[in-house]
Amino acid sequence: MLKLSEEKVFKDPVHHSIFVQDPVIWKLIDTPEFQRLRRIRQLGTSYLTFHGAEHSRFTHSLGVYEITRKIIDQFERNGYADWPREERLVALCAALLHDIGHGPFSHSLEQVFGTDHEDWTCELILGDTGVNAVLREADASLPGKVAAVIRKDYEKPIVTSLVSSQLDADRMDYLLRDSYFAGVHYGSFDLDRILRVLRPHKGSIVVKESGMHAVEAYLMSRYQMYWQVYFHPVTRSSEVMLRAIFRRARELYADGYRFAFLLPPLESLFKGALTMSDFLELDESLVQTAFSRWKYEADPVLAELCRRFMNRRLYKYIALERREEGRIGELAREWEQAGLDPEYDLLIDTPTDLPYDVYDPETNRHGRDKLPILLLDDHGNCEEISRRSEVIRSIAGLQKGKYYVYFPEEKVKAAADRFSAGTRKLLNL
Amino acid sequence: MLKLSEEKVFKDPVHHSIFVQDPVIWKLIDTPEFQRLRRIRQLGTSYLTFHGAEHSRFTHSLGVYEITRKIIDQFERNGYADWPREERLVALCAALLHDIGHGPFSHSLEQVFGTDHEDWTCELILGDTGVNAVLREADASLPGKVAAVIRKDYEKPIVTSLVSSQLDADRMDYLLRDSYFAGVHYGSFDLDRILRVLRPHKGSIVVKESGMHAVEAYLMSRYQMYWQVYFHPVTRSSEVMLRAIFRRARELYADGYRFAFLLPPLESLFKGALTMSDFLELDESLVQTAFSRWKYEADPVLAELCRRFMNRRLYKYIALERREEGRIGELAREWEQAGLDPEYDLLIDTPTDLPYDVYDPETNRHGRDKLPILLLDDHGNCEEISRRSEVIRSIAGLQKGKYYVYFPEEKVKAAADRFSAGTRKLLNL
Amino acid sequence: MLKLSEEKVFKDPVHHSIFVQDPVIWKLIDTPEFQRLRRIRQLGTSYLTFHGAEHSRFTHSLGVYEITRKIIDQFERNGYADWPREERLVALCAALLHDIGHGPFSHSLEQVFGTDHEDWTCELILGDTGVNAVLREADASLPGKVAAVIRKDYEKPIVTSLVSSQLDADRMDYLLRDSYFAGVHYGSFDLDRILRVLRPHKGSIVVKESGMHAVEAYLMSRYQMYWQVYFHPVTRSSEVMLRAIFRRARELYADGYRFAFLLPPLESLFKGALTMSDFLELDESLVQTAFSRWKYEADPVLAELCRRFMNRRLYKYIALERREEGRIGELAREWEQAGLDPEYDLLIDTPTDLPYDVYDPETNRHGRDKLPILLLDDHGNCEEISRRSEVIRSIAGLQKGKYYVYFPEEKVKAAADRFSAGTRKLLNL
Amino acid sequence: MLKLSEEKVFKDPVHHSIFVQDPVIWKLIDTPEFQRLRRIRQLGTSYLTFHGAEHSRFTHSLGVYEITRKIIDQFERNGYADWPREERLVALCAALLHDIGHGPFSHSLEQVFGTDHEDWTCELILGDTGVNAVLREADASLPGKVAAVIRKDYEKPIVTSLVSSQLDADRMDYLLRDSYFAGVHYGSFDLDRILRVLRPHKGSIVVKESGMHAVEAYLMSRYQMYWQVYFHPVTRSSEVMLRAIFRRARELYADGYRFAFLLPPLESLFKGALTMSDFLELDESLVQTAFSRWKYEADPVLAELCRRFMNRRLYKYIALERREEGRIGELAREWEQAGLDPEYDLLIDTPTDLPYDVYDPETNRHGRDKLPILLLDDHGNCEEISRRSEVIRSIAGLQKGKYYVYFPEEKVKAAADRFSAGTRKLLNL
Repeated sequence: MLKLSEEKVFKDPVHHSIFVQDPVIWKLIDTPEFQRLRRIRQLGTSYLTFHGAEHSRFTHSLGVYEITRKIIDQFERNGYADWPREERLVALCAALLHDIGHGPFSHSLEQVFGTDHEDWTCELILGDTGVNAVLREADASLPGKVAAVIRKDYEKPIVTSLVSSQLDADRMDYLLRDSYFAGVHYGSFDLDRILRVLRPHKGSIVVKESGMHAVEAYLMSRYQMYWQVYFHPVTRSSEVMLRAIFRRARELYADGYRFAFLLPPLESLFKGALTMSDFLELDESLVQTAFSRWKYEADPVLAELCRRFMNRRLYKYIALERREEGRIGELAREWEQAGLDPEYDLLIDTPTDLPYDVYDPETNRHGRDKLPILLLDDHGNCEEISRRSEVIRSIAGLQKGKYYVYFPEEKVKAAADRFSAGTRKLLNL
Repeated sequence: MLKLSEEKVFKDPVHHSIFVQDPVIWKLIDTPEFQRLRRIRQLGTSYLTFHGAEHSRFTHSLGVYEITRKIIDQFERNGYADWPREERLVALCAALLHDIGHGPFSHSLEQVFGTDHEDWTCELILGDTGVNAVLREADASLPGKVAAVIRKDYEKPIVTSLVSSQLDADRMDYLLRDSYFAGVHYGSFDLDRILRVLRPHKGSIVVKESGMHAVEAYLMSRYQMYWQVYFHPVTRSSEVMLRAIFRRARELYADGYRFAFLLPPLESLFKGALTMSDFLELDESLVQTAFSRWKYEADPVLAELCRRFMNRRLYKYIALERREEGRIGELAREWEQAGLDPEYDLLIDTPTDLPYDVYDPETNRHGRDKLPILLLDDHGNCEEISRRSEVIRSIAGLQKGKYYVYFPEEKVKAAADRFSAGTRKLLNL
Repeated sequence: MLKLSEEKVFKDPVHHSIFVQDPVIWKLIDTPEFQRLRRIRQLGTSYLTFHGAEHSRFTHSLGVYEITRKIIDQFERNGYADWPREERLVALCAALLHDIGHGPFSHSLEQVFGTDHEDWTCELILGDTGVNAVLREADASLPGKVAAVIRKDYEKPIVTSLVSSQLDADRMDYLLRDSYFAGVHYGSFDLDRILRVLRPHKGSIVVKESGMHAVEAYLMSRYQMYWQVYFHPVTRSSEVMLRAIFRRARELYADGYRFAFLLPPLESLFKGALTMSDFLELDESLVQTAFSRWKYEADPVLAELCRRFMNRRLYKYIALERREEGRIGELAREWEQAGLDPEYDLLIDTPTDLPYDVYDPETNRHGRDKLPILLLDDHGNCEEISRRSEVIRSIAGLQKGKYYVYFPEEKVKAAADRFSAGTRKLLNL
Repeated sequence: MLKLSEEKVFKDPVHHSIFVQDPVIWKLIDTPEFQRLRRIRQLGTSYLTFHGAEHSRFTHSLGVYEITRKIIDQFERNGYADWPREERLVALCAALLHDIGHGPFSHSLEQVFGTDHEDWTCELILGDTGVNAVLREADASLPGKVAAVIRKDYEKPIVTSLVSSQLDADRMDYLLRDSYFAGVHYGSFDLDRILRVLRPHKGSIVVKESGMHAVEAYLMSRYQMYWQVYFHPVTRSSEVMLRAIFRRARELYADGYRFAFLLPPLESLFKGALTMSDFLELDESLVQTAFSRWKYEADPVLAELCRRFMNRRLYKYIALERREEGRIGELAREWEQAGLDPEYDLLIDTPTDLPYDVYDPETNRHGRDKLPILLLDDHGNCEEISRRSEVIRSIAGLQKGKYYVYFPEEKVKAAADRFSAGTRKLLNL
């Protein structure tokens, strides 16, 4: 692999500078598939709660690349025997490309349409794309290797663990980046310190024992970001509304409804027949343009949901404890009796909908999941970190999450006298 | 004006917290016209150069409001006699709303279609909109007053000078915000210090003499941001391409070309008959969706420009000194002789295209322009700041700016042997 | 209480600006007793581990004042009934003055000489001092009230809890300040957020329920700062050496040793007869000057310890688990057999020497201790926070801390063959 | 030169981490002469104006080393031919040690006693010291080389220009560091960017043309720091008082006055016979301890000045324009007539006392001075930067600075009616 004649530098708010020395990386950044990430926001609808969080997956992907590069540089500089130097390029490419399969408002869309961003990432790496051409040009085996890292079945698991483990470049970048753009403190931790205590060790990346407190701080950041930012109930309100829009549109399409406005990628999506070229058109601009037009659709449910979403008139919510799960059925019945639509005027966010990425020491029990974090002592022995840290045990074991019940406030208020006394109290009516 | 029962707080990366105590402000933020600003980027295409700069005019508008609120709070807390306390709400509304008339990629669009964002701002304030309803509900005279501030002909010029002068809340927020999101240092200055040295004085906002160095630092920040960020040649490349796309599409429409994809707002724009409802649909999502579809239009010029813009294959450039202006005509002739299109393969950015907002002590000579910055001494006398500061004189007088000539590199390279020797040298062929 | 005609502002790295509006505060800052705090470092010998941590108690005291002022301003602005407005000045004075009784390298000095900084703070407030004069001039009852707050027996405990509780202005400032100057991340938390969720409630300061995660983050910062900064083994090495120097000097004095250099305050200290005027001379400059001279004292133990301390040739250490406590006696015996001095060549830092200020929900069981943190729900009920947060329980219960055994490495190495095999292994000889 | 088996890291607030790979550097940091810098403040008495500015020359010296290391690493990584690789260690040692000859409150002390810190730095490097031993152990020629760099007559001027030029590691570190600790914004500039545009070129360090704006920003920072921080009139007040104390003490000593407290280093200083061992004892602790004792000296002038200095009761000031220089003599006469001491109750700070380090393109006219900043264009030609930048010309030419007249306010007020009307007006009596 040749070096670029002159190192390229991107200004980055999180890492100050991002350095590119490898021409393959430079060319990958220039592909249409990678540039498309500029039109997919990193945090979906979180900008409706934290207005600064408008950053794209493009910026995050560069950040993951940069952290991976720094880790590898440290390994190379210190000449650690357990790091396979020949894997540098595979690792950097996987880091850069790990998110290219994300669609617009990815989590909601995947939930409704059953697509999978990891599958799409692999298809874009292996299929007839600009990305594939750049990789192949460098080495015919490169696309296959990079896709294997993404699928977590690459023959050298240490490469996978750089990009996808409980302490990987992905998580490190997103915590720092999301907290920077959202303007909150919670996601901040000492990246430099963590990078200095990582060690390649028998096929995985482990942490020097003296770095335990730094890892505690990193996991607490993650814990805080999940509960304070990622699962903020206002953001979840916009997510359930988004899912309701997608659900309604698909239903209408299945029922033969004629949309006044429907672009090819959406039609393919509704049909369950998304081609790669459709996929590449499917970005958040297109979804927002569709919603903007659908405000005028004949179907009142779809039109109203789109109006609300575009103008940020979000559903209000009440929270139910897990043991109150039973009340949800009752609410649906009361909704119906009150003349409300139990399907679209009552949207439920269940704890299991939350993609909670808390640290779980047994996360890998299903084989292909995230590797736990291991501490390496001076004698070369490894121990899973939660055995050593009561703080980490406390968050690892946490069973949190409630049921959130979302509804259009003014409609529900208008029907107040048709609800039972208990429900009125629950809804603060 | 009543206060909100509980102060509302927005987390903001630049000001940490943005506080809303007035219900009118709270309701204005919730209008569709203001929410639309989330779909208009603050810096147009700058994100193609500084990838972090993806923030919207929504975040900036909240920031301008917050700085204005802080200045007024300081005036009220100190009980300065020259500040008309009854103007608080007018000033805050004008600060919040000053940018709602911006369209997508505003500067390029205005240049091609001759629209004016200040006019649109006034129309949205005075017309049949959510914003107007909120203002009228508070006070029937409020829309007229706010629009007058925007037009800079409000009867109390001190209110205008808060929102629009050489040292106004608008400039202070955008320098800090743009540098935060772009990840550069240049825009940073001591906001707290400047806020503390502002004084209302005989109908305008002036600066206590002891704040001169702080203002110097602010103006140097502005100088740096213009030359290092706003006028970055790569950003200008995307701007000239954007203008070329708009220009081409309008020409095609005028010539009766049938677009495969054309949404109502764009059609109205081409016709020069943009209604308010069209305008409100016209955001960057829609423009990007249009460009994404136009990649497949029959017209090869439009299709190619859109492909390049969406995939960030920007035109390369060379710079010409002002005295070399004459060469531009020669280049056009050579382009034509070489079989290239002198209209779309050769795009010129002239220094006068640059909306350079350098400090100019005589800026107000045309009556309705930006007021200069005055220093107030202990005896109550004011003096224009550049008379006191050699540093400010040095940037105030600066005649900078070159001609930039942009072109599709691979096309021009392919035609290399058809150019004269001088042109080949100029283009590094 | 009159206001200053013009608000005074101190530039502060942590709070940006510190505002003084009350003339009493302004005059207190100007007293010799308060200015003396510039000559006492906030973190004792921590600068020997984190070179940036050279800041003084002067800067911290201003910070505690500023946070207290912000909390009170918030209470006053919102007109909370449970805040006794007439206590503003008492609270601000107590906040500013809470540390004026600290001596040089306070913890070590107190441990050896049995002095108590809280007692000295009260003496300085009540005695014939500049501070007392300023307080009395404002109100004859003020010195007594401020001293009562310091002693934690003021009649209005809410005032005490502002300055001294588990979530007080003191802790909030020192975490932020110490981490800023040391250049570490651990002490950072969202101060603005915490200030917004504090509420005066029935005689104490409580936290709105929605602020629980912010308090978790604050307590985690504290946990991290204790283990990563305050109890850093290298800092502890310098502390045990400092104690050894003080111990040796006192012994020598008691034995009638004639010091070549001994200034009055030190002589009084050795005699146990420190007068107020002695105390005010006793700062870190004087201690360092004494140590600098004592390098040339006839007593070799004192001279060597001072040489090492001044030139930062610190003792090395090994750590023993709590269950290994028994080995310490064995080590002392071996030391003696090897011809080393078990008193000065073997210095022990026991876990109970650590002033560990972890959150303890039952901290107040002894009556006059720190109040626990209470969460206030929407119905006006309070609950101790660790009952609600597993994370806080995990750190509240922590029994950490080891025995650290410090020794002069080269001396111990020279005697290596006189130690038992087990000890040689323990000491890595 | 061997590498350390493991890279050492210092946490630093400005550079985050400071890396030491060379054992010589590690050992130099551990010498008594270098550790002594912890007892000398970087900014003398500036902490009396900006309370955070309590940092020592120790932290700054590490910072200068780190910036030098980063520059050299960049040169080595890119393999620039004009950088003499064999000079790495000489440059790093000179960077680290460049300030070890500074005494307490260096500028004032040098002015009164005529000592020179550069001379002392060379003596410490060449004499019988720990520093010399470490250097000699590495290479017998190293002390001589390092001293030559300090004296600016090393045979390879490129090494000197790293440590001492208009854009050297010294200035870059102190601007960033002083602004960090003082808590001001002015000193901030984009260090990373500047480091990337430096190039070794024909025996000196030059700047790539594209870095011109970054250098402008750096020079503006310097300009701001000088006028807003370093020459702050309150700081200057403490400096003139300090000089007055030193002056008085020396006079008394010369007149045979018997000091109640006088340590050897001070006595040697007064005699003009400072030995190296005296010099190494002479730190700010000792000076403060002396002043603290001198509050009780029999000489009332000395006692009063020391009391004021220690308790920060600084002289007040008025400013005179340069053309008003003549009034100073008149004031002295009036002082005398009014019964005041024209020598100690009237202290003058003249503009030429200011060590103003503004950028001066012709700075090197005297041969051994600071080299100007050169811009390197693509054709390998260099041009002095102020020829290209009007902004830099504007500050390079600046003739600023006034006369400041300092006096004890209450004494002068008490004598008010003995002054002429003009003087009363001038002094605001």
